[in-house]
Amino acid sequence: MLDLAFQPDRNSRVPLYRQLGDFLRGLVATGRAAPGDKLPATRELAAALALGRNTVTQAYQTLVDEGVLLSHVGQGTFVVSRAVAAAPAAAPPPRGFVWDGLFSRWSRGLALPERLLRAAVRGEFPFDLRPGRVDRASLPLASLRRACSRAVAEHLPRVANQIDPFGWMPLRREIARALVARGIACEPEDVVVTSGAQQALHLTAAILLDPGDVAVLEEPGYFGAAQCFRAAGAQLVGVGVDGEGLRTDELARVLRSRRVKLVYTTPAAQMPTGAVLSDARRAALLELADEYQTPVLEDDYDSEFRYDNPALPALKTRDRAGQVVYVGTFSKALFPGLRLGYLVAAKPLLARLALARMTCDLGSDALAQAVVMELLASGALERHVRRLRKKYAARRDAMVAALDARMPPGTRFTRPRGGHAVWVSLPRGADPEVVHAHAREAGIAYVRGETAFFTGPESRGADCLALSFVSQSEAVIEEGVARLGEAVARALATRRTA
Amino acid sequence: MLDLAFQPDRNSRVPLYRQLGDFLRGLVATGRAAPGDKLPATRELAAALALGRNTVTQAYQTLVDEGVLLSHVGQGTFVVSRAVAAAPAAAPPPRGFVWDGLFSRWSRGLALPERLLRAAVRGEFPFDLRPGRVDRASLPLASLRRACSRAVAEHLPRVANQIDPFGWMPLRREIARALVARGIACEPEDVVVTSGAQQALHLTAAILLDPGDVAVLEEPGYFGAAQCFRAAGAQLVGVGVDGEGLRTDELARVLRSRRVKLVYTTPAAQMPTGAVLSDARRAALLELADEYQTPVLEDDYDSEFRYDNPALPALKTRDRAGQVVYVGTFSKALFPGLRLGYLVAAKPLLARLALARMTCDLGSDALAQAVVMELLASGALERHVRRLRKKYAARRDAMVAALDARMPPGTRFTRPRGGHAVWVSLPRGADPEVVHAHAREAGIAYVRGETAFFTGPESRGADCLALSFVSQSEAVIEEGVARLGEAVARALATRRTA
Repeated sequence: MLDLAFQPDRNSRVPLYRQLGDFLRGLVATGRAAPGDKLPATRELAAALALGRNTVTQAYQTLVDEGVLLSHVGQGTFVVSRAVAAAPAAAPPPRGFVWDGLFSRWSRGLALPERLLRAAVRGEFPFDLRPGRVDRASLPLASLRRACSRAVAEHLPRVANQIDPFGWMPLRREIARALVARGIACEPEDVVVTSGAQQALHLTAAILLDPGDVAVLEEPGYFGAAQCFRAAGAQLVGVGVDGEGLRTDELARVLRSRRVKLVYTTPAAQMPTGAVLSDARRAALLELADEYQTPVLEDDYDSEFRYDNPALPALKTRDRAGQVVYVGTFSKALFPGLRLGYLVAAKPLLARLALARMTCDLGSDALAQAVVMELLASGALERHVRRLRKKYAARRDAMVAALDARMPPGTRFTRPRGGHAVWVSLPRGADPEVVHAHAREAGIAYVRGETAFFTGPESRGADCLALSFVSQSEAVIEEGVARLGEAVARALATRRTA
Repeated sequence: MLDLAFQPDRNSRVPLYRQLGDFLRGLVATGRAAPGDKLPATRELAAALALGRNTVTQAYQTLVDEGVLLSHVGQGTFVVSRAVAAAPAAAPPPRGFVWDGLFSRWSRGLALPERLLRAAVRGEFPFDLRPGRVDRASLPLASLRRACSRAVAEHLPRVANQIDPFGWMPLRREIARALVARGIACEPEDVVVTSGAQQALHLTAAILLDPGDVAVLEEPGYFGAAQCFRAAGAQLVGVGVDGEGLRTDELARVLRSRRVKLVYTTPAAQMPTGAVLSDARRAALLELADEYQTPVLEDDYDSEFRYDNPALPALKTRDRAGQVVYVGTFSKALFPGLRLGYLVAAKPLLARLALARMTCDLGSDALAQAVVMELLASGALERHVRRLRKKYAARRDAMVAALDARMPPGTRFTRPRGGHAVWVSLPRGADPEVVHAHAREAGIAYVRGETAFFTGPESRGADCLALSFVSQSEAVIEEGVARLGEAVARALATRRTA
């Protein structure tokens, strides 16, 4: 019996007989109905689908006319042809297509190590503390609704035909205005709108890195940046991180011994530890970059979220030679599914970035750009960020207090002054696999530390994990951390005595 | 005198004194106000900007507190510091940063030939016949408004945290349903949502092409595809086009003599000639691809727009071995600024495409995906396409009739059965530069033929041009073609007698 799970769309202006006809044609085209298969009688199908019998008769007749079905009086209607799929009648059986061996080096360079595939967690969890999400309950839905209405009504006719690889100028103007207020010297012409910070990193890596080039990044650090550099064929060199952020002394050693093509850093809130790069290190980093004539890629993805001290100005504010490529995003302040970010770069890079952008995807979505422009121009985004900052500070405090209270002795963790996540190191003797299994059972999800390391042994970072403090309420954070503490305690209790 | 072009946003909840303070801080940060510069008196500035004097006083005081301004009683207020930009006081003057020599081969491979830069046309034209635009007056604004409202109200909370490199599943389901109705055997899991067809081409090229690989494409053909292949370092081999589309006899010769890694084609409406690939050539192309085990990249960007005969099924419908990568887009049916397209590919490609996608930009915009899903599910998009098809057919007829009536003898042009554009060859003796100059004077814009050729001499295609028949009304088309005819006639009249 054929699977006739047809769902008529009664709100559609497409007549029902055509909807049904399309559906039946699809069954044949995809091989779910094969020549010889018998269709239900029109009366029967009409009853089963709550359609008029005439609708079914008309749908069948269309396909009979097309030669797909055949009706035998008194016997019923049959599939007679795969003509829809138009396979040549006398063709030899397909021999299948062997894709192995056809993939590019670039693509092969992206392959994920086994440990990362193992570390990936899918599904829904009541205590989901994975970074990279926002709290649905905190979405500024009213502002978004207003911005969308205005975007369609006022801007869409104008931007419909716009594909500017640099972005829509009114949005670039708003971004430049916000950046200037943060002390970044830029004109709208220096701003490139990108599809998220990730694309900004990708484009920068693509125009600067050749196979074999050395790219320096923080370790632990941001996986997505490492993928961009790896895809370009670069050699990754990790530089350590402590409570003041990137270790510039280590960076100096690397720069002395190798030609470095790019230094990637997250000074506002180190990803994933949340450390703020200290003032002295900012100065040292720029001095080194200047001395070795190395471009710096500043990922300021979390600049809006600093909780304690007045924000330190971005590296870019001190960049008098134009060697810092500055990257920001709207995905953190609004939501990750909004794929809009931006970069600010020196003039010689702009034309190349535009060509790269045109090749990759021409430009960013007009509707999303118009919506974010409205949110910036109306001040709604700034107000939203101000509210979030307060909320996130309280949640950060709740998480740190819960970790203090609930984690077994020997656990270490950062007390982030900015950003979204706490970086936790498990106590010695707690098997990360066992902790993970217990945590999943208890309904907790986190991001495993392996994802933040790109060099060195397979197991690096396995004893660490990242916990977001922004995407859940304080109650969920407290209960989640308490359960995590129990999971770690159980793992410690079951460890083999040495 | 300082340029104080400050625009207060009176709808913002940000107090005016803070808005003004941010603006002034920006002036200092960007060097538009330098230490020593005197600010206007508060009373004067308040009057000039129609602000309360208190607002100006408060703004000044904030910056005085920050050490940016200094007030001398009886003398006025001065900029005293660049502290905003936080440049170390005793730093040596910047030596500037030399970017030349730092750019990757990939990026250098994107550089546009001089002739293409010359061919680029910017600005607004009353008779704008450049392909790649839609008619603003034909936008389905009411449907878009409804779809946007529903997207924000019903889907946004759910998709806010979604970044799926394959796309949002409800959209993939709608796309698969539409494709199955066109005879393409696919499941939602085989569909990858992309940021426009361009990204689908880029991702496919990126995972398949290595430097030195041979990529075959139609010539004249689509510039954006050529850029993807060129960026990957591939050697481009052009295959000719006639009234039946891609010349499969030429393709056979290329395949016999060289290992070809990818064949790119636009069978539904050859870009830019509008020719529909004939049934016999479709069979021949797939047989060749099968024989030489070559992947085929089918760009079905214009499949919805066929005007005369019933649509031929896509190549993908005959693809029993899975070697056709099928690409479609919503930008043609809706508007180019909407960056949403899709591809359907064999299973072995999917994981690699997803990794490439995560590296490039993580995924497509959630809002745009939700909007298009609504337009598909409600049937609004299908109804819109049906209306457009009728309108475009009439405009195609108007353009062909105008070309018949108005172009000087010796002009040749295609009579497209599908697509968006007519491909015109100027009569012998009409200097393309002269035609172009006359056309611009007459307010006409078109795309010059050089952009459609990627191999051979610099001047190839210079005697051709592409005219869109979809973005303007019949009246504009008729007048535009009449003026173009005059421009060509004038060019012919002024030619040097040999």
